[in-house]
Amino acid sequence: MEAEPNLASRLRALEDREAIRNLIASYGPAADRGDVTAAAALWAEDGCYDVGGFGLHRGRGAVEALLWGESHQALIAGGAAHVLSPVEIHLHGDTATAIGYSCVFRWTGEGFAAHRISANRWRLRRGAGGNWLVEQRESRLLNGDAEALSLLRALPAPLPESA
Amino acid sequence: MEAEPNLASRLRALEDREAIRNLIASYGPAADRGDVTAAAALWAEDGCYDVGGFGLHRGRGAVEALLWGESHQALIAGGAAHVLSPVEIHLHGDTATAIGYSCVFRWTGEGFAAHRISANRWRLRRGAGGNWLVEQRESRLLNGDAEALSLLRALPAPLPESA
Amino acid sequence: MEAEPNLASRLRALEDREAIRNLIASYGPAADRGDVTAAAALWAEDGCYDVGGFGLHRGRGAVEALLWGESHQALIAGGAAHVLSPVEIHLHGDTATAIGYSCVFRWTGEGFAAHRISANRWRLRRGAGGNWLVEQRESRLLNGDAEALSLLRALPAPLPESA
Repeated sequence: MEAEPNLASRLRALEDREAIRNLIASYGPAADRGDVTAAAALWAEDGCYDVGGFGLHRGRGAVEALLWGESHQALIAGGAAHVLSPVEIHLHGDTATAIGYSCVFRWTGEGFAAHRISANRWRLRRGAGGNWLVEQRESRLLNGDAEALSLLRALPAPLPESA
Repeated sequence: MEAEPNLASRLRALEDREAIRNLIASYGPAADRGDVTAAAALWAEDGCYDVGGFGLHRGRGAVEALLWGESHQALIAGGAAHVLSPVEIHLHGDTATAIGYSCVFRWTGEGFAAHRISANRWRLRRGAGGNWLVEQRESRLLNGDAEALSLLRALPAPLPESA
Repeated sequence: MEAEPNLASRLRALEDREAIRNLIASYGPAADRGDVTAAAALWAEDGCYDVGGFGLHRGRGAVEALLWGESHQALIAGGAAHVLSPVEIHLHGDTATAIGYSCVFRWTGEGFAAHRISANRWRLRRGAGGNWLVEQRESRLLNGDAEALSLLRALPAPLPESA
């Protein structure tokens, strides 16, 4: 955890971490209830979602299009849960990285299958309004492929100029 | 996150969120180790647990009866885990809503099956002693049924009078 | 939550809980990406990892040896995720207990199997450098065995002398 010299900045760091945790915890419910607008609104206008096997989607509109797509719509119509794990958060002033897992379960008719278990790396930034937004979410299926493993490593802190 | 004018109230909001998160994280361990009293004590005396497929249970005693019931007891005797996901928390003074998932895994003899994956919505309130209590927990299997999806949406903030 | 008389100590308690949560959330990513050094560095030098079915490993070097072992290496090479649930945290000054679940999913070639679902109890302490370290992690498969259930119960607070 970052050492902070005074109470106000330490408090703000905790609030930032809490806001980031809440943001990530709200993705699954929005995606699963079919609230595409709310799910995409977690991203910055120019944010990007790089989903293994489902391409790179740049901009909030592209994230919306992905979630309106046949694949996601069929998944949720049949009964599904996007369960996101707790995340390891690295906070650097107005930017942050979060590392965790997404577990997509599908209803099979008598129980649930662990359909997709993916590594997730989120790059976030504090927006103009003060709230946190997703700059980039990268996810890859943990099927032994090396690319997924690389997402489980935190990005280096940005250089002082950009922090 | 709610804007708070001073350090003390901002700190208290973080403590409230932390207490709610800890409360929800303690349900699974209590239920799985068969500590029915501890699990039911998370509810307010007049709290309610509305479990899809297992009925509506009103009052702490009714929650205890549910957990002493044959269905829960057989489940935990055979090896089971009630894994509750991170929750999206909406704090409104002395009340709060939390949205998340519960994943019940069962031992099959050689591995585990994802037996029940449910949407969960918790309504909580600060009790007389200052600690948070469950006023209502609603859960529904995510099997494509629309009722489950409605639980994945936060309740509106209470009117100022009741906050 | 512990009652704290002043802002600074209340803030510190929240930071401690946050640090513990982040530590536990960082185990899975380190273990899954094969970063044995980072995973073992979560333990104190004399810390211990007591894994049901895989023995008792005392000391950071022993934890490293476990993760370099054939069983873990084969697991991650084939595609696996060590997804750790949210934890119930009991903070007692410079020591803490955390209770939760670990869910190990394996790639099967077409989806994922819930390979191991275990109860986990962590005993942590604040190290000399101020950061939290694992003193003991105990885990047991939730297959109906009574030993696993006993891990789902928080340890009593240490006596005042040792706190």
